[in-house]
Amino acid sequence: MRDLVIIGSGPAGLSAAIYAKRAKLDVVVIEKAGYSGGQIITTERVDNYLGLPEIDGFSLGNRFREHADKLEAEFIDDEVLKIEEITDSEGKKAYKVMLDKGEAIETKTIIAATGASHRKLGAAGEEEFMGMGVSYCATCDGAFFRNKVTAVAGGGDVAFEDALHLSSLCEKVYIIHRRDEFRAAVNIQQKVKETANIEILPFYEIKEIKGDKKVTSVQLVQNKTGEEKELGVSAVFIAVGMNPQTDIFKDFVDLDEKGYVKAGEDCKTSSEGIYAAGDIRTKPLRQIVTAVADGATAVQSVERYLHQR
Amino acid sequence: MRDLVIIGSGPAGLSAAIYAKRAKLDVVVIEKAGYSGGQIITTERVDNYLGLPEIDGFSLGNRFREHADKLEAEFIDDEVLKIEEITDSEGKKAYKVMLDKGEAIETKTIIAATGASHRKLGAAGEEEFMGMGVSYCATCDGAFFRNKVTAVAGGGDVAFEDALHLSSLCEKVYIIHRRDEFRAAVNIQQKVKETANIEILPFYEIKEIKGDKKVTSVQLVQNKTGEEKELGVSAVFIAVGMNPQTDIFKDFVDLDEKGYVKAGEDCKTSSEGIYAAGDIRTKPLRQIVTAVADGATAVQSVERYLHQR
Repeated sequence: MRDLVIIGSGPAGLSAAIYAKRAKLDVVVIEKAGYSGGQIITTERVDNYLGLPEIDGFSLGNRFREHADKLEAEFIDDEVLKIEEITDSEGKKAYKVMLDKGEAIETKTIIAATGASHRKLGAAGEEEFMGMGVSYCATCDGAFFRNKVTAVAGGGDVAFEDALHLSSLCEKVYIIHRRDEFRAAVNIQQKVKETANIEILPFYEIKEIKGDKKVTSVQLVQNKTGEEKELGVSAVFIAVGMNPQTDIFKDFVDLDEKGYVKAGEDCKTSSEGIYAAGDIRTKPLRQIVTAVADGATAVQSVERYLHQR
Repeated sequence: MRDLVIIGSGPAGLSAAIYAKRAKLDVVVIEKAGYSGGQIITTERVDNYLGLPEIDGFSLGNRFREHADKLEAEFIDDEVLKIEEITDSEGKKAYKVMLDKGEAIETKTIIAATGASHRKLGAAGEEEFMGMGVSYCATCDGAFFRNKVTAVAGGGDVAFEDALHLSSLCEKVYIIHRRDEFRAAVNIQQKVKETANIEILPFYEIKEIKGDKKVTSVQLVQNKTGEEKELGVSAVFIAVGMNPQTDIFKDFVDLDEKGYVKAGEDCKTSSEGIYAAGDIRTKPLRQIVTAVADGATAVQSVERYLHQR
């Protein structure tokens, strides 16, 4: 019976691994992707993880993994198919983590660190220019497009907050949305309307993201008239939601209306012994450093639980 | 009128500085110590900030500051004497930050990142061996004393949690407390009593921490009988509380019973426009990375407030 199984080895899972190893827990990390680092691996540049300025995401992910390796964290390259609640020999609650290729692992606690993936627009060029002008995080990448013309795709709070954030950095910001109604909060909508360098383009969809190595324009289509136009932009920030990776946990833990695992800053979920760390968790800001912080806090919660279990 | 004044340049303040600069806020950081980095500057070794393994605290503090310098964050070496609430030309709430040597700074928002200092025992040798066996953070430094004999001074939750944390790492752990009553939660006390390698020494006080470059023993005195004894230990973890540095904020924001600024994960305090980041804030775990995460989240809260102010 293990003390802890960490599922996922992005920033949250790796941070949990180093804290757990330093606390001498019997821990194993399961990663299905074949590499560690999570979303940051495909990020062109990261400049907001304090102490490691201007680093590419691939290198940062490797440094994170090397730290865990240095502390001799154990990794299993496999996919978790299913989790079952079991009872240990003392009659206490525990879990069985079923793997695809390997055997099942019994554990007293689990940290869910499988993250969330950004929903794609599905536009031509979106994959091709990812990290070269296509971004899913204005807070992360906005600063790389100072004094440029940029576009935000989406109509919710995140899209409008992104547009406001970008408006102080960029020459001009377009909000491209397929409808003329927006889910964003009214006061944020108001502020956007008052901001001179933001222009809203309702009823438009992005048909294609174009460029040459880097994004240079978007091809839009008006979804009522079919009219097309090309807009010169250096970046497209896509804010059409996230898909938290909760499939294997959702039978055990409460989710919020957007599908995130409900857990406070202490990472405790509705299920004793299961903790949520990183982007998968309900939280105010999803960034590398907030995921790394979660890894630390989740292990503290695991330790406290083990002490009184 | 500035957008943001950050008070303190430890990990929380420096992280807030890089996020604020990247968001192009008009921001200035005030630091009274003459150097940045806060508590970590005097930390011998840090091995739990993901991506920067086995670094000394001084170097880590410098790397943090260099990151902020690279983004051209503005620093003022001065002490904040007082904060006043003012009204700006549009009738909106703002603050005036009074400096000791310099002029007053008017600002729309403030991030309180002045941290907290660990209470000292006041024992001989305590200062001398700081970082050389005297530690105020078992989560941070426990792993450096694997299979050694260690002592924890204190009788509260933190002291008992520290002892449990250390019990899995160390050969033996003494809890030294001046009374035979403990503030620690009953279930944690029970667990400690069940843990074979933890020994509680009630009615003992640490008179002197002894060593040669590194800690080798503690001289104890029984406070009822005056009896003295020497205990061979490699480390003393001092867990007798913290003093959050809230003097300049306490007229504006609610504090909890221990003196921390009441603020959730979004860093919002009871006063609009004032945010608390890092060790000063009520939070489950005080670590470098949780302070750095706070810096990021606090700036997001500042941005959102500025957008609707």
